[in-house]
Amino acid sequence: MPATDNPAPKSHRSSRRDRAKRWIADLHDETTSLFSRLDHGGTFREDRWLRPGGGGGVTRILADGETFEKVGVNRSAVDGVLPAAAAVRLGGRTESAEGNKFFATGLSVVAHPRSPRIPTVHMNVRYFELTDDSGELLDAWFGGGTDLTPTYPSPDDARAFHRTLRSACDKHHASLYPRFKAWCDDYFRNTHRGGEARGVGGVFFDNLRPDEDVSALDDNALFAFVGDVARSLQTGYAPIVDQRRDAATNEAERSLQLTRRARYVEFNLLHDRGTTFGLQTGARVESVLMSLPPIAQWNYSADGVTDPLSAALAAMLVPRDWASEDD
Amino acid sequence: MPATDNPAPKSHRSSRRDRAKRWIADLHDETTSLFSRLDHGGTFREDRWLRPGGGGGVTRILADGETFEKVGVNRSAVDGVLPAAAAVRLGGRTESAEGNKFFATGLSVVAHPRSPRIPTVHMNVRYFELTDDSGELLDAWFGGGTDLTPTYPSPDDARAFHRTLRSACDKHHASLYPRFKAWCDDYFRNTHRGGEARGVGGVFFDNLRPDEDVSALDDNALFAFVGDVARSLQTGYAPIVDQRRDAATNEAERSLQLTRRARYVEFNLLHDRGTTFGLQTGARVESVLMSLPPIAQWNYSADGVTDPLSAALAAMLVPRDWASEDD
Repeated sequence: MPATDNPAPKSHRSSRRDRAKRWIADLHDETTSLFSRLDHGGTFREDRWLRPGGGGGVTRILADGETFEKVGVNRSAVDGVLPAAAAVRLGGRTESAEGNKFFATGLSVVAHPRSPRIPTVHMNVRYFELTDDSGELLDAWFGGGTDLTPTYPSPDDARAFHRTLRSACDKHHASLYPRFKAWCDDYFRNTHRGGEARGVGGVFFDNLRPDEDVSALDDNALFAFVGDVARSLQTGYAPIVDQRRDAATNEAERSLQLTRRARYVEFNLLHDRGTTFGLQTGARVESVLMSLPPIAQWNYSADGVTDPLSAALAAMLVPRDWASEDD
Repeated sequence: MPATDNPAPKSHRSSRRDRAKRWIADLHDETTSLFSRLDHGGTFREDRWLRPGGGGGVTRILADGETFEKVGVNRSAVDGVLPAAAAVRLGGRTESAEGNKFFATGLSVVAHPRSPRIPTVHMNVRYFELTDDSGELLDAWFGGGTDLTPTYPSPDDARAFHRTLRSACDKHHASLYPRFKAWCDDYFRNTHRGGEARGVGGVFFDNLRPDEDVSALDDNALFAFVGDVARSLQTGYAPIVDQRRDAATNEAERSLQLTRRARYVEFNLLHDRGTTFGLQTGARVESVLMSLPPIAQWNYSADGVTDPLSAALAAMLVPRDWASEDD
């Protein structure tokens, strides 16, 4: 990569890495507080861990809460050497045929509510750097997203969630929401089940670099945009929880919830690149797999969907433009 | 492959394929009867399915039985075109750079008992053929195995299971049990969890061809040997079920069972080649995933094993020579 593509002096790059770490740590604390409040004072266990290859993280778990059966809020900041093939698979720009040094810091959140009336939510934001052996920056980018996985088919919740995301994106550039909504629909699919979506989507993006693509967001604007995606749990998810927490539910809905959670497990273990990346780079297994539901069921289903509840949910899993629909 | 390696006329090959299909169908019926009896008259739902690319199968499911929460007994006979890379991955001998025709017939069984005192069992036997476009046989082999996955740490059960398998193997050749026991220990490992074994093993083998390897079993002897592996459910697993079915159990054992079942899910979705092969070749998803437990739990565990029950089980998951141990 020519030097002109990389004008930042080393001290600036290092401070950017530090900035990313502080930013993730702050979002981690904010998110923990949010879910503690949503669980009416639920407490998180904190587990600090080190990665043998470099770096570590802080996993916080709320188990058996009032509102949530399981919430995992994990931050990590890891570094080490990445094989060139792995760097390319991640979308990194590198001309090295061997390994690059990498640095990654990120926040991952998955909340599995107790009530089938409250949807499951996932959010992840991350900052990634590739450097050469001397520490010279080769590439750096942001990735992330958030998506909603309902059991109970409530189109209102899908519309509200997507509208909030559209507003959060539109503040930064009009191109962001449509592209990242479509990317999310494309990504969270169980291809082994005919491409069935994991849920009603949200936004998903990767390899977002300063001053690039149609949005041309600079460094500060990227931190702000990606931070707004993280904070959309507060603006887009929390109101759904508060609205649905007291809704009556029943055994049929609970059973459907456990079956849909099994699809969640299938997606995360068979298809999710973050999970694969975590397991292959030697991140803490329990922290990588904290996204898995507290309990899930696999009932053999010869005939597919037959009951009205499942059919209504299946209809919602076909991607559509939720944010533009009227309630 | 020179013609002398393939002396059987086409009619003979065709009858061998038919023989394999009948053999699998008979084993399917025997196995169904066995589990119906072990469940004290439990009934299986039968689901006949066609594979769009060619062939089909018969899946039988016992759900919510007296002894078993879920038993899946699936047979299939499928054919179609296999990319050369896939044929090589399966251990097939082919010089074609393009696709080969394949035929595969097999029986898969997974039984998830209700009581944590009864171990989970898996058994699979299969016959595989590669042919060229004209139907000329390029390669043919048998594969299979059976393995035991306990929750409650009972060394006696592991010893009895392995002794039965050793006897079943020794009838055919003294080399079989030691090799296939070691292969099983090597295969059923959750590499993402430090190589932890799925259970206490059993036997596993693949690419077993007539008149080859140290055992030099001919075609008839292979059918007999692999059939004995399938029937070891009757001789090696059924007595354990009958002995343990009335044992008292408790909530701690149930919770450990659900956690161990989650490890079973992780193995099958992350590592099992049969599952991957099934999902990639367009076999019926529900039938491929019938191996997954009826219900499983993921509790975040920061500190690994701490209670005596889990510790005793963990000690049993280190491979050892069960068949040679005294009770």
